[in-house]
Amino acid sequence: MGNKVSVGLLGLGVVGSGVIKIIESHQEKLMHQLGCEVQVKSVLVRNPEKQRDVNTDRTFLTTNPDDVLNDPEIDVIVEVMGGIDEARQHILNAFKAKKHVVTANKDLVALHGKELQNAASQNKCDFYYEASVAGGIPILRGITDGLSSDRIQQVMGIVNGTTNYILTKMDNEGMSYEDALKEAQELGFAEADPTADVGGLDAARKMAILGRLAFSTDVDLEDVEVSGIKNIALEDLQYGNQLGYTMKLIGNANFSNQQLEVEVQPTLLSKEHPLSDVKNEYNAVYVYGEAVGETMFYGPGAGSLPTATAIVSDVVALIKNMLLGVTGNQFVEPYFKKELKTPAERLGQYYVRLHANDEPGVFQAISSLFNQFGMSFKHILQTPLEKHGLAEIVLVTHQTSLENFHNILEELPKLDGVLEIKGHYKVEGDAEQ
Amino acid sequence: MGNKVSVGLLGLGVVGSGVIKIIESHQEKLMHQLGCEVQVKSVLVRNPEKQRDVNTDRTFLTTNPDDVLNDPEIDVIVEVMGGIDEARQHILNAFKAKKHVVTANKDLVALHGKELQNAASQNKCDFYYEASVAGGIPILRGITDGLSSDRIQQVMGIVNGTTNYILTKMDNEGMSYEDALKEAQELGFAEADPTADVGGLDAARKMAILGRLAFSTDVDLEDVEVSGIKNIALEDLQYGNQLGYTMKLIGNANFSNQQLEVEVQPTLLSKEHPLSDVKNEYNAVYVYGEAVGETMFYGPGAGSLPTATAIVSDVVALIKNMLLGVTGNQFVEPYFKKELKTPAERLGQYYVRLHANDEPGVFQAISSLFNQFGMSFKHILQTPLEKHGLAEIVLVTHQTSLENFHNILEELPKLDGVLEIKGHYKVEGDAEQ
Repeated sequence: MGNKVSVGLLGLGVVGSGVIKIIESHQEKLMHQLGCEVQVKSVLVRNPEKQRDVNTDRTFLTTNPDDVLNDPEIDVIVEVMGGIDEARQHILNAFKAKKHVVTANKDLVALHGKELQNAASQNKCDFYYEASVAGGIPILRGITDGLSSDRIQQVMGIVNGTTNYILTKMDNEGMSYEDALKEAQELGFAEADPTADVGGLDAARKMAILGRLAFSTDVDLEDVEVSGIKNIALEDLQYGNQLGYTMKLIGNANFSNQQLEVEVQPTLLSKEHPLSDVKNEYNAVYVYGEAVGETMFYGPGAGSLPTATAIVSDVVALIKNMLLGVTGNQFVEPYFKKELKTPAERLGQYYVRLHANDEPGVFQAISSLFNQFGMSFKHILQTPLEKHGLAEIVLVTHQTSLENFHNILEELPKLDGVLEIKGHYKVEGDAEQ
Repeated sequence: MGNKVSVGLLGLGVVGSGVIKIIESHQEKLMHQLGCEVQVKSVLVRNPEKQRDVNTDRTFLTTNPDDVLNDPEIDVIVEVMGGIDEARQHILNAFKAKKHVVTANKDLVALHGKELQNAASQNKCDFYYEASVAGGIPILRGITDGLSSDRIQQVMGIVNGTTNYILTKMDNEGMSYEDALKEAQELGFAEADPTADVGGLDAARKMAILGRLAFSTDVDLEDVEVSGIKNIALEDLQYGNQLGYTMKLIGNANFSNQQLEVEVQPTLLSKEHPLSDVKNEYNAVYVYGEAVGETMFYGPGAGSLPTATAIVSDVVALIKNMLLGVTGNQFVEPYFKKELKTPAERLGQYYVRLHANDEPGVFQAISSLFNQFGMSFKHILQTPLEKHGLAEIVLVTHQTSLENFHNILEELPKLDGVLEIKGHYKVEGDAEQ
C-alpha cells in the first residue's frame, strides 16, 4: 500500500465529481488522519471527452471497466454510476479482485445488499454504503455503532428531499402539487422524471436498508408498502393543519414481538413530533430505541458535496481497517428471521375525510359503524359544504388496527347518506402512541 | 478472553445501574454482535449494603478499587463515579493495568482528556467517552467517523437539558426563572444544587470536548467563555419572540482561518434555525461542515438508560477492537496548534435593550454611535414605557465584531438621554450569517 492509497471511481456525475473535489481539497486532513495520501487514480466514464466541472488532470479517464477494476495499484472502488445490473456486476468483480467498495447506490443496496455483503465477506473485503441513505447524514453509523447496544423499535424517516420540498411548499404556501413539483425541478431538487421520488419508491429503498440495519433482520424491497404523494388534496393538508398535523411522506419501520412492518406513505404527523419541523429538501431519520428513547439525525439528503462527504468518510473508515489489517469484519448476519406483521397486528391512528348528506341519522350511522369495529374518535370535524344539503366530515381515530381501518374504508361508502371517501391517511406522532 | 468479556464498574449511581440493566437485558443482542458474553463482574461502591433498584446478585460489590482495577479477569473498566481527582487516578491505574476504559465523565474529559488519551495510547488501550457529551446522542462518533472527511467549521449545541427545560418553560408559559427551576428540580431535570448547569459550566465542558474533536485542535476549559441563564429577563424573551428569535443556552464553537472561538451563553436563536425547535430537557448538536453543510443530532442529553446506551455502545466498539486485536489506535493527535480569535476577529449579531429619555435627538445620538463603529441595524423596536417620558429601545445589529459590540456597551450609557442597558445577547441563525 505504501504511503498512498489509490481509489478507482465508477462514474463521474455530480456525486463522482464531489468525491474528487473532497479528496483533493481535504487532502491534508485525510493525510493527518490516515498517515498516507489518498488519490483518485482512474475513473470509468462513458465519454472521456465530455467537458466537466472538476479538474481531472491527475486522473486517468477510461471507458474500459478493467482499467479500474483490475488495476493492481487500486485498493478501493467507489461506485457512483447508478443503475442496477452493470453496477452490481462491477462491484462483484471488484470483490473478486480483492478490492474494497464504497457505494452511494440505494437502488442496488436495497435490491442486492445481501448478495454484495456476502461477496465482500467471502473476499475479506469491506463494503460500505453510508451515502445510500440520507446523503450527508451519518445515519447508518448512528444505528450500527452509536446505538449498537440498544434494541431499536422504530425508525421513521423523511428520506426523500424531492417530496419533502413539494409538501413543504404545498403546506406553507398553499401551492398546488403541480406548481410545487415544477419549482422543485427548476431548483434541481427534483429530476426531470420524478416518478421514483413522488411515487415513494426512492424512500422505500432507503427504508429497506434502514430496517435491515436497525432490526437485524432481512428486509426486502417488496416488504415495503408504498404510496406516493401525487394524489394528496390541499384540503387534507389544511384540515390536518387545523388539527395539529403536518403532511409528510414518512417512511415508517416498526419492529415489535420480532415482527416487522415497513411502509412509506403520506402521513399526517403531529406538530409535536421532531420530524414535523424538517422542511424543504432536508432529510431526517428518527430512531426510537428501547433504552435511548427518541433520537433524530438531520441534514442534507442529497447533493454533490454532502453525498461525497459520506462516501469519503466511508473511504476513510475502510482505509483505517486496511491499515489495521482488519477489513472484511463489519458484517453481522441478520439475527431475526423475517416475519411480517399482518394487518390485524399493524396498529395506527387514521384520518379519513368523507362527504355525506347533512341529515339526521347519518352521523349516527357512521359513528355506530366505527363503534362496531371497536374504534373511537380523537378528532371530529364537520363542516357544511357549499353544495346545499351536504356535509364534509373529518375523523381521526384513536389507535386501532390497519385491518379495522380497511374494513371501515370498505363499509363506509355502503352506509345510507355517505357519498364518498375523499381522502384517508395514517396519523403519526400523537402522544397516545 | 475466552467466550466472555468481564467489565468492572466504578460507581453504581443512576448511570451505573443503567449500564447493568442494559448489559443484562440486551445480552442476546450483544452476544449476537460480539460472539461472546458480556458480564459486569464487579463494582466499586461506597456502601455495599445500600438498597439499590438494580439486581446485583451476579455482581461483586466492593469498596476496594484494587478489586476492580487489578482483577486479571477484567478487561474493560466503566467509570461512572463522577468527580475529578479520584476518577482520574483510577483511570490512570486502569491503563497501567492494560485495561480499556469507557467513561461518561465530562468534567474529567474536559479537564484531563489529553492526559488520559495519552496514557491510553501508551498502554495500547482504548479510551471512549461518547456518553460524556449529550447522553444518548452518538455525536462524538458522528463527528469523528461520520464526518471524518469533511472540514467542520461550526458546532452549536444545546447540550444542557436543565437549562433548556427552564428556558422552554419561561418561553412557552411565561414562567419565571425561579418557578421553572423549581419545576425542573421536582421532575428530576435539575440537581438540588443547579450551579454548574444554570451557570453554563456543564455546557462549557461539553463544548470543550466537542471543539477538540471537531476542529482537531486543543481546546481547554478556560478557552470557553461562559455565561449562564440566571439573569435572563422575561422581557428579552418576549422581545426576542416578537422579532423571530427563541432564547436558548447555546454552546458555540467556531473554527475559521485556523483560529478558534468557543463560548456558551444565552443566545437569541432565529426560529428558522434547526436548533430552535429543541425543547424541554432534550439536547441537540448542530454541525456545519464545509462540504456537508447543515447537520443536526438530536436526542436525550441525560438519564440513566440513554446515557448507559452510549456507554455500552462504547463497550461494544471496544470489544470489537479487542477481538480484532486493534485496540489503542483510535487516537489522532490534534492537527492545528491552538490559536484563539481576538474580539476583533469574533463576528456576530447582537441584541441590546436599553432605556432612554423619549425626547428629540436621543435616538439620533444612539444611531450615530453605532454608525461610528460601522454597525447597522437589522431590527429596531421602540416602545413608550409606562413611566412618563421614557422609552424602551430594542436593537438587533447586522454582523459586526465582538470588539465593536463591547465598545458600544461601554459608550452607550455615556450618551445624553440614555439611562441604562437592560439586557444584551448574541443573536444566531439569522440568514445573513
